[in-house]
Formats: sequence, structure tokens, C-alpha cells
Amino acid sequence: MASTYYFITIAILALASVVLVRASDPSPLQDFCVAANDSKNAVFVNGKFCNDPKLAKAEDFFFSGLLTPRNTSNPVGSTVTQANVVQIPGLNTLGISMVRIDYAPYGQNPPHTHPRASEILVVLEGSLYVGFVTSNPDNRLFTKTNAVALAALSSQNPGVITIANAVFGSDPKISADVLTKAFQVDKKVVDYLQAQFWWPNN
Amino acid sequence: MASTYYFITIAILALASVVLVRASDPSPLQDFCVAANDSKNAVFVNGKFCNDPKLAKAEDFFFSGLLTPRNTSNPVGSTVTQANVVQIPGLNTLGISMVRIDYAPYGQNPPHTHPRASEILVVLEGSLYVGFVTSNPDNRLFTKTNAVALAALSSQNPGVITIANAVFGSDPKISADVLTKAFQVDKKVVDYLQAQFWWPNN
Amino acid sequence: MASTYYFITIAILALASVVLVRASDPSPLQDFCVAANDSKNAVFVNGKFCNDPKLAKAEDFFFSGLLTPRNTSNPVGSTVTQANVVQIPGLNTLGISMVRIDYAPYGQNPPHTHPRASEILVVLEGSLYVGFVTSNPDNRLFTKTNAVALAALSSQNPGVITIANAVFGSDPKISADVLTKAFQVDKKVVDYLQAQFWWPNN
Amino acid sequence: MASTYYFITIAILALASVVLVRASDPSPLQDFCVAANDSKNAVFVNGKFCNDPKLAKAEDFFFSGLLTPRNTSNPVGSTVTQANVVQIPGLNTLGISMVRIDYAPYGQNPPHTHPRASEILVVLEGSLYVGFVTSNPDNRLFTKTNAVALAALSSQNPGVITIANAVFGSDPKISADVLTKAFQVDKKVVDYLQAQFWWPNN
Amino acid sequence: MASTYYFITIAILALASVVLVRASDPSPLQDFCVAANDSKNAVFVNGKFCNDPKLAKAEDFFFSGLLTPRNTSNPVGSTVTQANVVQIPGLNTLGISMVRIDYAPYGQNPPHTHPRASEILVVLEGSLYVGFVTSNPDNRLFTKTNAVALAALSSQNPGVITIANAVFGSDPKISADVLTKAFQVDKKVVDYLQAQFWWPNN
Amino acid sequence: MASTYYFITIAILALASVVLVRASDPSPLQDFCVAANDSKNAVFVNGKFCNDPKLAKAEDFFFSGLLTPRNTSNPVGSTVTQANVVQIPGLNTLGISMVRIDYAPYGQNPPHTHPRASEILVVLEGSLYVGFVTSNPDNRLFTKTNAVALAALSSQNPGVITIANAVFGSDPKISADVLTKAFQVDKKVVDYLQAQFWWPNN
Repeated sequence: MASTYYFITIAILALASVVLVRASDPSPLQDFCVAANDSKNAVFVNGKFCNDPKLAKAEDFFFSGLLTPRNTSNPVGSTVTQANVVQIPGLNTLGISMVRIDYAPYGQNPPHTHPRASEILVVLEGSLYVGFVTSNPDNRLFTKTNAVALAALSSQNPGVITIANAVFGSDPKISADVLTKAFQVDKKVVDYLQAQFWWPNN
Repeated sequence: MASTYYFITIAILALASVVLVRASDPSPLQDFCVAANDSKNAVFVNGKFCNDPKLAKAEDFFFSGLLTPRNTSNPVGSTVTQANVVQIPGLNTLGISMVRIDYAPYGQNPPHTHPRASEILVVLEGSLYVGFVTSNPDNRLFTKTNAVALAALSSQNPGVITIANAVFGSDPKISADVLTKAFQVDKKVVDYLQAQFWWPNN
Repeated sequence: MASTYYFITIAILALASVVLVRASDPSPLQDFCVAANDSKNAVFVNGKFCNDPKLAKAEDFFFSGLLTPRNTSNPVGSTVTQANVVQIPGLNTLGISMVRIDYAPYGQNPPHTHPRASEILVVLEGSLYVGFVTSNPDNRLFTKTNAVALAALSSQNPGVITIANAVFGSDPKISADVLTKAFQVDKKVVDYLQAQFWWPNN
Repeated sequence: MASTYYFITIAILALASVVLVRASDPSPLQDFCVAANDSKNAVFVNGKFCNDPKLAKAEDFFFSGLLTPRNTSNPVGSTVTQANVVQIPGLNTLGISMVRIDYAPYGQNPPHTHPRASEILVVLEGSLYVGFVTSNPDNRLFTKTNAVALAALSSQNPGVITIANAVFGSDPKISADVLTKAFQVDKKVVDYLQAQFWWPNN
Repeated sequence: MASTYYFITIAILALASVVLVRASDPSPLQDFCVAANDSKNAVFVNGKFCNDPKLAKAEDFFFSGLLTPRNTSNPVGSTVTQANVVQIPGLNTLGISMVRIDYAPYGQNPPHTHPRASEILVVLEGSLYVGFVTSNPDNRLFTKTNAVALAALSSQNPGVITIANAVFGSDPKISADVLTKAFQVDKKVVDYLQAQFWWPNN
Repeated sequence: MASTYYFITIAILALASVVLVRASDPSPLQDFCVAANDSKNAVFVNGKFCNDPKLAKAEDFFFSGLLTPRNTSNPVGSTVTQANVVQIPGLNTLGISMVRIDYAPYGQNPPHTHPRASEILVVLEGSLYVGFVTSNPDNRLFTKTNAVALAALSSQNPGVITIANAVFGSDPKISADVLTKAFQVDKKVVDYLQAQFWWPNN
């Protein structure tokens, strides 16, 4: 039986938990500025160094990595494939990128935020429960019930902060006393959470 | 037989003809600012007026219009379905939008430019000849050979300028003398071109 | 005994838990644009409507609310006093604001993020444990051990998202199944957390 | 006989054919950042590397190249003299530039667009037919009848795309099949156009 | 005898005294947004309200006011004619404007700064002494010796602050005690300066 | 006797004399980009080169220099201690900074402008006469009567231009003839002013 595919387009401020942010990337000052490999430079700049524009080639602007379904056998039941300035160096200075998200049944892309981008998401196949929460003081949840999805992000390097990992899986750990009060739970719960292996969902 | 679908992601400065531009939309100054209906206002602002944020609802952020394949029986053999701030009022101030492009065999989305956005395009099914041309003085063409596509654009209202329509189908018409010299052709060719019915590909 | 006061200035990407974001506010297009009262308008704009600049007065640019120490008898042991475009209408279009944070002994300003601003913090009195966590995949914690603090934020309306409140205290609640998997805990822990009264720390 | 000169100032979104775009250059982070010569660097950045500000000299901010009338004996009958960051290195990070346009009688500056700038134009001598076309779906032409002109552009490196050259004179050529359908003409017309020598009007 | 005219293009950070600033105007979110007349609105926005784009007409983008030489019989011996969003409503959201400056022999456009724009200046006729001073701590003066000039500014509403007028001619006056210490002069000099009639050079 | 301290927060467009400007710094393209030491590079960029983010350490984000009261025995009776990207390299790309201002009795921070930032000021102790003047043509003075102050600025490198120093203390000096006409005073007054030693208040 063929799975059907649905195009439901969703403007997402952030997926399932936190209001997202749009920090528009600085504007380009030339047609393109294909990102150079970081490894040769001892110094860095805001964004990326670029190659000589005369040496730009079609391959700098193409990527086939969104073609392949990915294994979703992991604790959260989803895998994110990124297509940003790291994978497509020609995206440098263009202020846009994409991701493919494969979901196992009942999988999820955990509550997260993109610190440098807005997101818009299209469900290609299956159905997804998607929503976002507004900032303080209301923290209203906006959702719609509706599993391969494509999302576009308004930055060449949108960044991701998976809330649970950032709070309980940081290196070194945040003081358990801080988290005990912040989450208003018994310290044993915090100790238990900090002892988990946090799946590196990026 | 099932058509296969390919995910080839392409950073596009502009499709098939003209270098595109990224004018990052101004940043938001609140969580969201759902676009209000223009029709009630005699005055306008840069962007859109918004509704009271307390009245925002999930529907303001969702759109099912990318679900339906569209008829491609038209002179250019392609149809663009937009999902921008007009269709998804919640996109207002977020600086991102999407389009679905249905192609008939040998159809095309004619040479165009987006005056206010960068574009990134994913080919979902079939294969596409895609490319872009750099600005003066080089006008280099970057292409890759590779028919339902999804594209994301880094503006809530990216705009489209279909070159042929803007040059030969404007209202009123550009002086034929100007175009004769600009395109270095016989005035009869310009007269012929200006007499065409230009398909309103938006 | 006099409490001493320390000026330790700290560039904070985000306090104690999540990387913060800088979405620079759009630039002003006139000397000032004093925010008008929202209540008179059925429509809204990105940011604020303003009053006639000829009617601007000194009071529009001043605020004495950071003068008074605030009561910190609440579950988190801290109180934030804001001085943004809501309290100082003259800040509209200027892209900056401040907050005062009073801490009880062992109090905290819980893990949060500012969706539209960078933060810089000065400790005036006492000592504070302050830090921030980088985005995926590293989630590195940067801290320094060192309690009245003043912080400046690079937006007229920086917004705040207190992680615990947004995740466990949203209205309506995020599905417990989602949170059970996201935080990799027993559903009872999630049920317990969602049943708490979440202190409206703004 | 003395030619008179007229100061008619015109806000131009784009000259004679295509709506133009304003992508404001990123803001400066210091007083000035005089552009260094590209040739010494194997790597590039968005914009330009700069010289040590202590070494800046008055000459970095001056240019006499707009002084000399230029030869307009070429197929389009006009010559553009640029004064941008290439000619005036001190313009780097300042977001502005100028051009002088000399017109032969009945000459033209062919339909073009500036991918990174708005334009404002002053006619110093003679009279010019100037206009611009809006984006889809209306493609309305705005004109006013009125030949040495000075134009200012809101970028240090505004870029130019001469439509006819980009469409018919790219290297390599755009597929004739694509252009035949895009311009809805016989393939012979496209072949003829692609065989022209395209004047390198920059 | 015909006066000759010189095209000397000068990137100016600020004229004769103070470093200038470039605050790039927010980007447009539509093709154009012709400024509406302020007088009908009790409320204001950052920038200008606009008219219905369907009602835009060619006149909204043209201005003949730079045509006429202006009387320079005033204390500073110069007159500035502005062509910004006030004179050309179509400039709204486009981030650019121009001025014409007529100089009497030995006239000057006094030390000033543009709070929202960079400036580039072309000397059309005569010769001008032009320069700018860097910010603290160096306050270096950059000049070049070289009287009708045209200048372009990277904002729809660049603003002008004539230093002498702002310091000694404000309403109400700045405390003489403040100025006595700031300028390290006898209070009588300050009293004398504050008693002058300050020419409203705009 | 204990000095009391007052928190009066003031949105300042500019202190005591000139309207200030907000040129929002370009947005960051990564979590952080700790400024590298200029001295190793023969070339420069807009802003700062950065160190490898993997080498960032807590110290890059902290500064204790605002801790110490400073000597105010100088002609203007005030001392400014800066905490910007020079002192806190982690501020690079974050668009915010702070200053501490110590005032002697009757001291002043002379009329100045920040060419790249808005300012917000909190009076911690004592009382201050603070105000700002609008741009031409009105030059209205906004003040409020109310001496250790902390100010935040919306740039990593806001810059300062002390009016008196820039006008009368530049190197080389501005032509006395220019200043005589600009300030409408006898040339002897200008000569006297230019002969002063200008205190390097930065």
C-alpha cells in the first residue's frame, strides 16, 4: 500500500515547546561568497571565510543528502538531516537553509528552539502533532494534530537547542541545586535526569 | 507504477536566469504579529498591520494549500502555489515562506528573480534543469541537470519578477525603441513579443 | 554590616541554561517614536504605534521603577523588574532595555532565554552563580561563581522564556507523551511536574 | 550653444524594466574599514578585508573618476562610470555608492536591476525617459519623460544585472529550449539573440 | 565666462567635524509603500504610513526641486535643498535620499552629523574644502581641498544635527554651567554664544 | 554617612547635547565569536576576527573592571570606564556593551554622541542632570534633574564623539575660518578654544 503524502504547511515559531526567534543574517555584499573550509584558518569571522568567487562551481550549491531516508531507531524516534552552510557552502551569506526530519511511529523531534531562525515546515507523509508555546507571561500552546517533514529556516546556520539536553545534559552539568529549584522537583528527580544518556539529537 | 521522489537540495540565487537577492526582512518586535486583512484600512504600513496578539489562533499558522497537485496546462507548463504571508497570516514578521511548483513534462518556471529573498529548492519527484546566472560583468551560468519541487524563501513576501513578462508584458508597454536597442533585435521581433498574451505566472 | 557591592560585568548569551539570541530590532526612521497606548487601536504593527513627535515630553524617557527593592518571597527566590518599552515608551525603536533582578539568599532566576536580545549583566551587590549553555551538539556550560544585578538587553522588547514554565506550565498543556519521551523519564514525573503551580516569573 | 542642465530627482526602484531591491548592507562596527586589495588574500569575507585604520588616509575616501565625460560610441549608446567600493576603498561598510551615466543621443542604459540596492537618479543635462516595472502579477510601468545623470545606490557594491545580457549572453548559454518557451518565440529568434555579441555594459 | 564643473566624488563620514553614522533603514516588505500624509493620522509608526499601492502614480517618485539654484544670502553662506521622503513620498522604505547644496563664495555647510545615514558627495561646480573627524580618542581630521554639490544619503530620512545649533541654540537652552565646563571657556563666551540668533540651517 | 543609591532608568538618545543614533550591529551567525587580538593580523574585517569557538573559555565573557571607583580629578570631573568588545572579547557579534561613569561633584560627561548605539542609563548614587537635544530643525532639549551611573549601549563598539574635542581639538585642526563662521564668534574665541589642552575623555 502506498503511503499518501500530505502537504500541510506550517509556520512554526518553535516546535512543541518554545517560542523561536528570527535573527536575520547580515545581508550579502556580493553575488555569492562560497564558504571555505574552516580548518585552514587559525582565525575565524562572524559567519565563514569564503573562497575566491572566480573558483565557484555548481557543486558548491547542490546537496543530495536529503535524498536518503535515515534510521530512526534512537530514544526520541526521529532523525534530523541538515542542509545548511556546513553541507552546502554556497548558502553562505544567503540567510536560508533546510532540514529533513524522519520520524518513527510515535517518534518526536523534542522540544527545541532555533536561536537564529524562523521555521516553516511541510509534512510530506504521515501526520504530525506540531505546536509552539509563546513567551512569558502567557506560555500559550498553539497546536494542530496532523511524518516525513521538510522544514526551511531563515538562516545559513540556524542552530538548535534541544531543551532537555541543554538543561540536563550540559558539560559540565548545571548545579543540581539550581535545577531542583527551577523545576520545583525533588533533587532525586534532577539526579536521575542528569544521569541519563542524552541522545545527541542535532 | 510509483513515481520515485528525489530530495536534491539546491541553494538557488535565482532560477535559470538571474542572480537573486537577499533583503532580510526587518526583525520581529514581539512573539508574533498575525497579519490583519488589508481591506479594512485606508492606510498601509511597510509589511502588514496585525491583529491583537491575544486573538491569535492555531489556524493563523497553518495552510493546507500545498496539498493539492495543480493543473499545469498553460503555456509555460508549470504552476506555482504560494504559501506566504497572504496565505499564512501568522508568517508576518517571521521572514520566511514557501512555494510548491508543479511541472508538466518539459514545463518550466521561466527565468525570474525574487526581489526580496534567497531561495532554496528541493526536488521531490522527477528531475529538473536548474541554474542561475551571476551579475555583470561575468553573467556566468551555474547549472545541474536533475518535477514536483518545494522551495523556501527568506521573506514573508518574497515577490517574483518573471523577466519576459516584466520586459515585454508590462502595462503600459515599455517603448519598443528602448527594447529594440536593449535586445539588439529588429523592431518586428519586439512588436511580435509585445503582442503575445503573457501567461500570468506568479 | 554594610553589604559590599561588586561590579562584575558579564556578557551573557543566556542565564544558566540556554544559548541566547540577538535579533537586532529594526532601525529607527526618525529621532524618536514614543510608543502609544495599545488599547486605543483595533489593529497592531510590528512593534508599537507612536504618538505625534511634537507631543513628546521628558517623562516619556524616564522611569523610577528600578529604584525600589522588590519582595523575593516566591518559589524561585528572585524578582525581575523590567524597564522596557512597556515601562518607558520613549524606548520604542531604540533597540535597548534594562532589568533589575532582586535575589533572596539562594534564590535564582531560573534557566531562560531571551528570544530577541543579547544580555549583559552587572552584579551590584552579593555574589551570583551565572552561566550559559551552548547550542547542540556540544551544550557546553560556561560559568563563573560570584545578588542585586542589573542587566541590559539589546531590544525594546526582549521577551523571556522560562524553560520550565514553557515546557511544563503551558496552557493548554503539552501532551504528556511528548514530554515523557523528550525528557526520558517516567510519565509519573511528567504528570507531577505538570501538576505544579508554576510561578509567573516574568 | 550651451546645453542647459536639469536637476530632476527620481527615486528609482529600477530603470526601464524591472523592480529593484533594497538589501541594506550590514552596519559598520567601527568608524571606517578601508577596503584592502583582494589580491593578497587566498580567502575572502562577506564584503572586503580592510587595512589597519591607523593607516587610513584622505585619498582612501576620494575619487576623481566621475570628472571625465566618457565615450558613448557603443551599441547601447551609454557608458556607466562607477564610484563604488572598488574605486573608493573608504566606502567599505558605509552602504552607499554612486555612478555617472553618459548618454549619446538616443542612447540607453538597458533594462537592468540592482540586486543589492535602491537607486535615486538626478538628470544633470538633457532629458531622459526613465521608468520601472512592478513585480508580478501586475508588472505596471511607471515612467516620466525627461542626458548626463548621476545616480546614488544604497550599497557599497550594488551589482548590476543587465536583463538582455543575463538571459541571452550568459556563459555557458541557457538552454535554447528554456528560452523559447519562456519568451514564447520561435527557436530561431532565440538562436539569433544568443548569437549576438553582447556589449559588456557594466 | 562659463564656470567649469568638476565631478569629484567623496565618501563622507561627516562633513568638516563629526564622524557620521550608518543606521541602515529597515528593509521593504513590498515593491513600494508610498508615504501617506501624516496629517490625517493621530497615531504614527516607525517611518511612515503608506497609501494603497494600487493608487501609486509616477509623480510619487519624481521631484523637480533640485533644479533651481537657491539664495545663499544667510550667515553661513550655504543652502541645503532636500530630496528625501518628505519631498518624494515614493522613497519610503527605500533607504536612500539626496540633497543639493548651494554655496556662496566662502560659504560653508557648518559642522554637522547625519544620525541615520552615510553620505557620498559630488562637487559639480567650483571647489570645496571637505573633511571629517574620527571619533574618540583620536579625533583625526581627514580633508582634501577642492561649490554646487550633490550628496546622496543612505536613508529615507537621514536627519541633520548642526553641532553649533544643537549645542548653543537648543530650546530650552542647555545649562550655561554645563557648556562652560564642556568647552572650557569663560561663562561670558557661553552667554554670548547662547544669545546669538542661530540660522535654521536644515 | 551612607550614600543612598537611586535607580532612575533613563532612555537616552544622547547626553546633554546631540541626538544619538542606533545602527544595529550585524546579527551573529554562530553561538559566539570571541574577538581575537588585532595585533597579529595585517588585515582587518568589519568588527573583529575571532578565535576558534572550541577554545572559548568563561574568562572571555567576564570583566571586573567596573568594580573599582575611578579618579575624577580632571577638567570635566568625570571618568568613563568602558566594558565593550575591547575589554570583553566575548561581546563580539552580540551587539551590546556597558560603561560606568564616575562623577566628581559638579562634574560632567560633556556633550557627546554615540555614532553606533542607543543608550539607557541608570543612576546608582547621587543625582544627575541629564538630557538630550533633537535633530534639526527643532533642536528641542529634553531634560530631567536627578552621580555613579551605569549605561548600556546597543553595540559591541558604540564609539563616542565628544563634541567640543572633535570640533576644537582635532588633529590637524579644523580651519579657524570654518569654525569662526560655524559658531558665529570672533576668530579670537576660536583661536583660544583651539589652543586649549583637550582632556582625552573617552
